[in-house]
Amino acid sequence: MARLLRSATWELFPWRGYCSQKAKGELCRDFVEALKAVVGGSHVSTAAVVREQHGRDESVHRCEPPDAVVWPQNVEQVSRLAALCYRQGVPIIPFGTGTGLEGGVCAVQGGVCVNLTHMDRILELNQEDFSVVVEPGVTRKALNAHLRDSGLWFPVDPGADASLCGMAATGASGTNAVRYGTMRDNVLNLEVVLPDGRLLHTAGRGRHFRKSAAGYNLTGLFVGSEGTLGLITATTLRLHPAPEATVAATCAFPSVQAAVDSTVHILQAAVPVARIVMMDACNRYSKLNCLVAPTLFLEFHGSQQALEEQLQRTEEIVQQNGASDFSWAKEAEERSRLWTARHNAWYAALATRPGCKGYSTDVCVPISRLPEIVVQTKEDLNASGLTGSIVGHVGDGNFHCILLVNPDDAEELGRVKAFAEQLGRRALALHGTCTGEHGIGMGKRQLLQEEVGAVGVETMRQLKAVLDPQGLMNPGKVL
Amino acid sequence: MARLLRSATWELFPWRGYCSQKAKGELCRDFVEALKAVVGGSHVSTAAVVREQHGRDESVHRCEPPDAVVWPQNVEQVSRLAALCYRQGVPIIPFGTGTGLEGGVCAVQGGVCVNLTHMDRILELNQEDFSVVVEPGVTRKALNAHLRDSGLWFPVDPGADASLCGMAATGASGTNAVRYGTMRDNVLNLEVVLPDGRLLHTAGRGRHFRKSAAGYNLTGLFVGSEGTLGLITATTLRLHPAPEATVAATCAFPSVQAAVDSTVHILQAAVPVARIVMMDACNRYSKLNCLVAPTLFLEFHGSQQALEEQLQRTEEIVQQNGASDFSWAKEAEERSRLWTARHNAWYAALATRPGCKGYSTDVCVPISRLPEIVVQTKEDLNASGLTGSIVGHVGDGNFHCILLVNPDDAEELGRVKAFAEQLGRRALALHGTCTGEHGIGMGKRQLLQEEVGAVGVETMRQLKAVLDPQGLMNPGKVL
Repeated sequence: MARLLRSATWELFPWRGYCSQKAKGELCRDFVEALKAVVGGSHVSTAAVVREQHGRDESVHRCEPPDAVVWPQNVEQVSRLAALCYRQGVPIIPFGTGTGLEGGVCAVQGGVCVNLTHMDRILELNQEDFSVVVEPGVTRKALNAHLRDSGLWFPVDPGADASLCGMAATGASGTNAVRYGTMRDNVLNLEVVLPDGRLLHTAGRGRHFRKSAAGYNLTGLFVGSEGTLGLITATTLRLHPAPEATVAATCAFPSVQAAVDSTVHILQAAVPVARIVMMDACNRYSKLNCLVAPTLFLEFHGSQQALEEQLQRTEEIVQQNGASDFSWAKEAEERSRLWTARHNAWYAALATRPGCKGYSTDVCVPISRLPEIVVQTKEDLNASGLTGSIVGHVGDGNFHCILLVNPDDAEELGRVKAFAEQLGRRALALHGTCTGEHGIGMGKRQLLQEEVGAVGVETMRQLKAVLDPQGLMNPGKVL
Repeated sequence: MARLLRSATWELFPWRGYCSQKAKGELCRDFVEALKAVVGGSHVSTAAVVREQHGRDESVHRCEPPDAVVWPQNVEQVSRLAALCYRQGVPIIPFGTGTGLEGGVCAVQGGVCVNLTHMDRILELNQEDFSVVVEPGVTRKALNAHLRDSGLWFPVDPGADASLCGMAATGASGTNAVRYGTMRDNVLNLEVVLPDGRLLHTAGRGRHFRKSAAGYNLTGLFVGSEGTLGLITATTLRLHPAPEATVAATCAFPSVQAAVDSTVHILQAAVPVARIVMMDACNRYSKLNCLVAPTLFLEFHGSQQALEEQLQRTEEIVQQNGASDFSWAKEAEERSRLWTARHNAWYAALATRPGCKGYSTDVCVPISRLPEIVVQTKEDLNASGLTGSIVGHVGDGNFHCILLVNPDDAEELGRVKAFAEQLGRRALALHGTCTGEHGIGMGKRQLLQEEVGAVGVETMRQLKAVLDPQGLMNPGKVL
């Protein structure tokens, strides 16, 4: 379905079937009224500025505003909204914090954006069972603030203060994944409103067991489905004991190979490193005095005694691999400055060219292939004339090349796109994936086909077709 | 489709459509000849004794022999077999070691049993990437023997020496899951022959990255699908560093509550315990001198220094909870005797009533609900007049009640079935699952419906219908 022209408000909802039977203006007003009847008049907006705000995320994909934005207050309203849209053939785009990086919220076919942030309760905390149930408006920082005195925390940390249900939808992960896993490993159950409005509990209503072999893994199917199979209205998460103590460390290496070799040796020695990130560019934004050499940022969690052993083993390993300046910090302020720097890499990169936007690549390869692809990527970067820096989660083979681009410069945008595709294909050739944690969104659908092959994509299409037969859930994404 | 009478060999394959067009005998011989043409004459058997061997696993489900057994030698043959059966509407039952516990190999509609054990190569070991690719004939013990000098191991351990692809198919786990996860967490990629013979690589051909956000999680969908969506012909597994040292420990508690409280406190203290198993019955089979009281069996993996700290913390915690006789063993022989005893619990139970078979329940509940359900289960056990013992993976809330039953005693079988269903419903009422690791198989389909609800089962049915439109893959299981 091609995007439809909308030159006046009375053409607001010119969707299939629905508008052909009556005069358009009346019908469209009818539909908006129907939305208002579900969520209340103050929770529906068709204002241009609001629609614009909901048509983009933090990526370079151009804004594609929805035709209306609604703020449901509870799952019953979400269910009624879905049923209403289903009857009328209107696309639905779920919206959390809008911090995605692959254009996941762009309303490429118009439709209704369902902003879920008003549903922001922490529904249930089971401390002894290490689990919690959250609504879509709860962000990871809000959850961890709530957990502060419980002795527990939720470690998956993609950088942005994203909503936890959004993180489930995109299969997010982040720097802690090497020890604590990704969203795929930490979602125990999902409440999902299916395209026709029915309510699915992927592991059964209210269930929060640690493991199961009961039938098909529906939870796993919906984690990472990017809003294309249904709306996630609650997520049951696995929690972890808060670390007794934390140490951060950094060291610089003569080469990317030496940094990666150190990482493999640390993992082989079963040092339970919590984070291990490689950066390969200096930045001035966060005042971090880092070296102009491949640098590892590490973090260790454990008891004081365990940390000392971990630090000692790590220092031995990195020094065997030629590291210099191994330094570590136990104090929160110092650690925080270190990791804030890494978290702010995105904004740091942006700050080097005011007015530009950032585009982050996201490939992931088997760890042994990291040196090869990082070296190639640096060469490609130089050849492209683009500005960028490399941040790698070397513990799991995922790395980002953060490119700066002037969104109004079509030629530069084209070069960024070409560079990213080339990098994606390099990763595929090395048995890797085109996306470790950002998702497919709009821009990587061709790469997905190359990655999983014709039968893989056909299987995904079959799943989409059977669960969303009208193709209304976040159309134009993933497939 | 009702099971069809087979009174003579010429009625061997009276399936839909196929046999209605020609004389049956001729057709059936044709079909067997067609199977032989694919795999070679010596790799097809219709002998009664062979079919009987393939019609049962280690459960109490009665033998349901297939109509023929074939041994493909490679994936191309598996693909051609599937395509042949698909054209003729013949059911397919994948077969590994036959060590399942839910009747997963019973040929309830007859059909062709595909014994995959001749495909037994370890195809690829990537030491730096901590991954390996194995064919279906490779068992977990064979893999670990192969890995012995690599510094790596595969920790998922369901007790039986099952095939790794079979373990992927049933979503197996075992005592190590508390630290290393289940098959769901450790399968990186699957090669699957789809019902029509097409070859699917769930994460893309040859890929073995650690994490991905690329499209729907097909790997997760096939892990635990119990052969109902396709035949797994290769599995890429995540490996772990072999523990530098291992310590086993045991201690007895005044109550189940005290044993479970200790477990929760150990987990909250972030002691990285590798195994934590509760047993609540003595046995004479393995000569283990255990107490007639709830007993924890623990195992720790790590460096010598780390182990000392883990043991010390654990001892403090269990003593605070009233444990007596905390003892531990570092020597392999002593440890092995301890854990052999746990592994042999099944055979130990069987040995107490010669001629009987064992039936193992498999519920899993949130850890906080374990004391309640174990106490109830013991009461139910006494009331039922059945013989049984309890073995619990208390680290993840999964426990087994191993019941002895004379398979020729219909009345006793009925009581076992009633007891198991009651236990399943108790687990569901406590937000648990009817199966932590054995799967649904034939016997728990009703409980699965109660567990995931009408929408959950309908969603699973939709997935099955779209991926196996003729319903030929291991019919009568899961749904």
